[in-house]
Amino acid sequence: MPIIAHELAKKQKEISVAEFFERNKQILGFDTTTRSIITTVKEGVDNALDACEEAEILPDIHIEIKHLEGNDYQIIVEDNGPGIVKRQIPHIFARLLYGSRFHSLRQSRGQQGIGISAVVLYAQLSTGHPTLVTSKIGKNLPAHQYELAIDTKKNLPEIISDQMQHWDKESGTQISLIIKGKYVKHKKQSVYEYLKSTAIVNPHAQITFIEPDGEKIIFERVSTDIPPSPMEIKPHIYGTELGTFIKMARDTKARKLTSFLRKDFSSISLDKAREIVKKSDLNFMDKPQQISREDAKRILEESQKIKLMAPPLNCLSPIGEILIKRGLKKETQEISPEFITTVQRTPQVYQGNPFLVETGIVYGGKLPQDDQVSILRFANRVPLLYQQGDCVITRAMEKTDWRRYGLQQKGGRGIPYGPTLFLIHVASTNVPFTSESKEAIASYDEIEKEIRLSLQQCARTMFRHLRKKERKSKAKDKFLLISKILPQIANKAAETLGKPPVAIDEIITQIMDILWIEDEVTYEKKEESWITKSKITLTNYMTKKQQFTLYAIKPHEAIVHQVTPQPTVVTDTYLKWHIKNLSSNAKQEICFELTGIDKGDFDDNDLYIQGINPLHVIGAEKWEGD
Amino acid sequence: MPIIAHELAKKQKEISVAEFFERNKQILGFDTTTRSIITTVKEGVDNALDACEEAEILPDIHIEIKHLEGNDYQIIVEDNGPGIVKRQIPHIFARLLYGSRFHSLRQSRGQQGIGISAVVLYAQLSTGHPTLVTSKIGKNLPAHQYELAIDTKKNLPEIISDQMQHWDKESGTQISLIIKGKYVKHKKQSVYEYLKSTAIVNPHAQITFIEPDGEKIIFERVSTDIPPSPMEIKPHIYGTELGTFIKMARDTKARKLTSFLRKDFSSISLDKAREIVKKSDLNFMDKPQQISREDAKRILEESQKIKLMAPPLNCLSPIGEILIKRGLKKETQEISPEFITTVQRTPQVYQGNPFLVETGIVYGGKLPQDDQVSILRFANRVPLLYQQGDCVITRAMEKTDWRRYGLQQKGGRGIPYGPTLFLIHVASTNVPFTSESKEAIASYDEIEKEIRLSLQQCARTMFRHLRKKERKSKAKDKFLLISKILPQIANKAAETLGKPPVAIDEIITQIMDILWIEDEVTYEKKEESWITKSKITLTNYMTKKQQFTLYAIKPHEAIVHQVTPQPTVVTDTYLKWHIKNLSSNAKQEICFELTGIDKGDFDDNDLYIQGINPLHVIGAEKWEGD
Repeated sequence: MPIIAHELAKKQKEISVAEFFERNKQILGFDTTTRSIITTVKEGVDNALDACEEAEILPDIHIEIKHLEGNDYQIIVEDNGPGIVKRQIPHIFARLLYGSRFHSLRQSRGQQGIGISAVVLYAQLSTGHPTLVTSKIGKNLPAHQYELAIDTKKNLPEIISDQMQHWDKESGTQISLIIKGKYVKHKKQSVYEYLKSTAIVNPHAQITFIEPDGEKIIFERVSTDIPPSPMEIKPHIYGTELGTFIKMARDTKARKLTSFLRKDFSSISLDKAREIVKKSDLNFMDKPQQISREDAKRILEESQKIKLMAPPLNCLSPIGEILIKRGLKKETQEISPEFITTVQRTPQVYQGNPFLVETGIVYGGKLPQDDQVSILRFANRVPLLYQQGDCVITRAMEKTDWRRYGLQQKGGRGIPYGPTLFLIHVASTNVPFTSESKEAIASYDEIEKEIRLSLQQCARTMFRHLRKKERKSKAKDKFLLISKILPQIANKAAETLGKPPVAIDEIITQIMDILWIEDEVTYEKKEESWITKSKITLTNYMTKKQQFTLYAIKPHEAIVHQVTPQPTVVTDTYLKWHIKNLSSNAKQEICFELTGIDKGDFDDNDLYIQGINPLHVIGAEKWEGD
Repeated sequence: MPIIAHELAKKQKEISVAEFFERNKQILGFDTTTRSIITTVKEGVDNALDACEEAEILPDIHIEIKHLEGNDYQIIVEDNGPGIVKRQIPHIFARLLYGSRFHSLRQSRGQQGIGISAVVLYAQLSTGHPTLVTSKIGKNLPAHQYELAIDTKKNLPEIISDQMQHWDKESGTQISLIIKGKYVKHKKQSVYEYLKSTAIVNPHAQITFIEPDGEKIIFERVSTDIPPSPMEIKPHIYGTELGTFIKMARDTKARKLTSFLRKDFSSISLDKAREIVKKSDLNFMDKPQQISREDAKRILEESQKIKLMAPPLNCLSPIGEILIKRGLKKETQEISPEFITTVQRTPQVYQGNPFLVETGIVYGGKLPQDDQVSILRFANRVPLLYQQGDCVITRAMEKTDWRRYGLQQKGGRGIPYGPTLFLIHVASTNVPFTSESKEAIASYDEIEKEIRLSLQQCARTMFRHLRKKERKSKAKDKFLLISKILPQIANKAAETLGKPPVAIDEIITQIMDILWIEDEVTYEKKEESWITKSKITLTNYMTKKQQFTLYAIKPHEAIVHQVTPQPTVVTDTYLKWHIKNLSSNAKQEICFELTGIDKGDFDDNDLYIQGINPLHVIGAEKWEGD
């Protein structure tokens, strides 16, 4: 009888990574022809933005899509980045799993070394066409142009042609591909939507887009500040897996255990390194290359028990509350929203990787009242358009009880309904995507929790705003009613009794029994910049004089200019006044000016009060401490 | 000024596929420690089942999980498959992208050559332990035992030890790993659930599971029929991408264009090959290795216009309606469901890949009335436990209007509510998973449509059953009421008028005006097998004699034994009788017997009628044609 295993063995063989993805193109985001065009543009633009960011250049990106024949489309993406040196071009564009960002820990759009070569692979697979790449690295140098294909059996570049060329550009890269696709205009999942969302979270980028029908759309930059290029960091020992630790110990150049810990990990001082080594019953002179699995395990276990600093955070590049607000404002103009608020959380760590969450909420205006809310998801400044169902962002949304914040939600679970748009941005040195198409983030508890907290923080502000509006309007109604009817009753009574009419002001005050706060924000142009002027009016409709503390929240980025009266305290985030003596029926005005921000960046006062029962205050909330 | 591109170039380098997945373990299904245990068992069991299937052996699989210390668990999976030849063991278990099933087109659980080595990678990453693999390929041969690790920088096996060993087993493979994990018992997402679901769709497998607390669970096989090992097929030209076609033409051994088309693709005859070549303005003697991109494009375009046979379908291995029903019945015993129905659709093609959908519905019993329905998803006989949100199966469920089938569903969209459990199995030579963790199927239109049709077909049967029950019960109430009250009224009237009571039967018949059909299924043991006996009773409660055709549906697999009266037609799927003359108030009995199926496989008659207004029939539906 023949041995079956021998028969089976004949078929066993190696699979090249390019062959693998050629067969499984859906994993890379090329399942439908519509999505294939979006994925192609996305990978091109992500690469372009990363290149500009690394070189600290203000990005100026051109995208053009041309309809050729049948289902064939030509897609061109061009940037003004630093360019790519000649010998690297074939590897970067025509070899999967090749790149610069995989081995360095810092926030970037590309991490995997797959994206752009996946597009070249798809072009070749779907239309048989090679890809044209042109790149120039400096002013007085020629540009290089390559025609590239991928030898999928070997996963190596195949150079079809290679020539020097003149290019009227200081530096930059252009990629031109022909793919099978289907172009849709103005859909929820479209190139236009992808670019619009990209513009929101990359306010420093200028993006020009020419559609197949010739329409030209420009997404103007709203900020000329180049985001600082994120720093590269070492891994943090808290989240390091044992296997990784053993490999690092084997490969390190350090000769002593303590220097290995200090130099190959972030946030370990010499003292801490010694402490870890000692508690693990090892000697600091031990060679890291020679430690056993058990030694390594002990070191890891002991280091979890020691209090170490968090990883440094300059490896992250958040967008910032003001820039997100500005982006949202610009892109939701047609909706004329009632209210926009944004929150940036402090960085956290999951499995040793620093990450940070930023969120924004747009409320009201023309947003539909009874539809599900819209969710714009972002990872490292890249919009995520597909696989919403399995993303940690969606999960965090679904697990929040939105009924507490005034939205409709069946049973307090699931995507809520209401006139609201959410923006959520997760930034990390290593975003844990669920697949190579990078459209959904895996559900790590730490990330889910941060998103939830961030959403709640934003939602509270939104809810406060709605409640303030509602309470003000109710109090106003009451006020009008009283000031209209009470005098009439008083007059009628006096008339009936044949007595002179009484002064009614004090009685109104007695009935109202509130501290009424009005506020107003205006802007004044001064040379090239804007001054934001906030005026707060306090009126004491209570029978006694009042003494209390008022807090006005300000954006981190804004600089406090003139203030009257003199505040007691000014911090990064608020101004504070002690109001010592506001007599009954008296009014007081408080004014402050902010500079360093644009018109509209600050458009609604967020006021808090202390030392007075908040139930008697209209226009400010109870101060809950810093 | 230094050229930035030069600086950036220094960091560009190759990424090994093992390094890539070491960093992105969540893509492989190792994001949480709970899921890591499930994924490990899943990859082990999938491999074991595939091995047995290839060798046509009835699988007998043992799984044991032991809790070591802290978060460390040992996981052992053992099969009685054909074993693996010595030199292949290191490559299969300690090298990613290596295997036998990637390059062959036929249905199998593993396709990617990643799964089992991913588990070895995770063991090494999370606990630093190598993996122990023992395999034996024949009765009088020794077993080989390897201790294996993966050199992640090179993606190559590292052999820690290698020895011969005695093993009291004819042939088989055992893998033993130590991983970081968290064991949960009895949760929706657990090893137990995974194995239970696996047992449903692999009724020929015997699975023994020992939990960390020592509890031993046996999932008994319910069928001793080994499913035929699916045949390997050639790709179909309809779904072949241009790039793939060009590569195939370049690599073929055929010397003529026509023989290339005939031999390297399925379902192309010589005539068709000649027709394609001719219509593409080429010569059949042309060498396929030399055709241009344009020639290739024309051939592909022309072949889409020619009617070719579908790809051969013996590459697929469906479970079958009866076996799914049996599996569902066995695993839902505690629920005592009211009704189970299953459907197997005919195979279809997406992008050149044959695929097939099977579904089952379990209704009623102890299933919760007001919860969302449960969905059991399967691909190539493997349960899918994660990423439900982004699976084409979920999408097809959500896009079906379930209100039409008696379930609750807000707005006719989304997962419905009701006492129902769905089973959906997608089988294909190439299941398009959304990631390497193989938990969700990408949304190809063709697949989504087939799932929808299959669900609707099942749902219609369920709905018919519910309606039949409801109509019968209503008619019965009416019947009882009439036969009780009418005689009383008649007697009273006769008494009052002093006349003798009239015969009331005909009047009852006049009022009922229906054909009443009762049916009953019983079983009789005969030697080792069962005879299923179905008795149908027709009663004509109409004033005129009736003539009509009756259809009784039978399972494909069942063999028709005795039938009285003689049916007019017997097909694979139904029996048909012409009832020529059923007088008013007369009764007729129809009996048929089925063999070749088990007790309970057929437990409810599905009857149709033609030639009579179906509104006057209780117990059968209108026949809509074959």
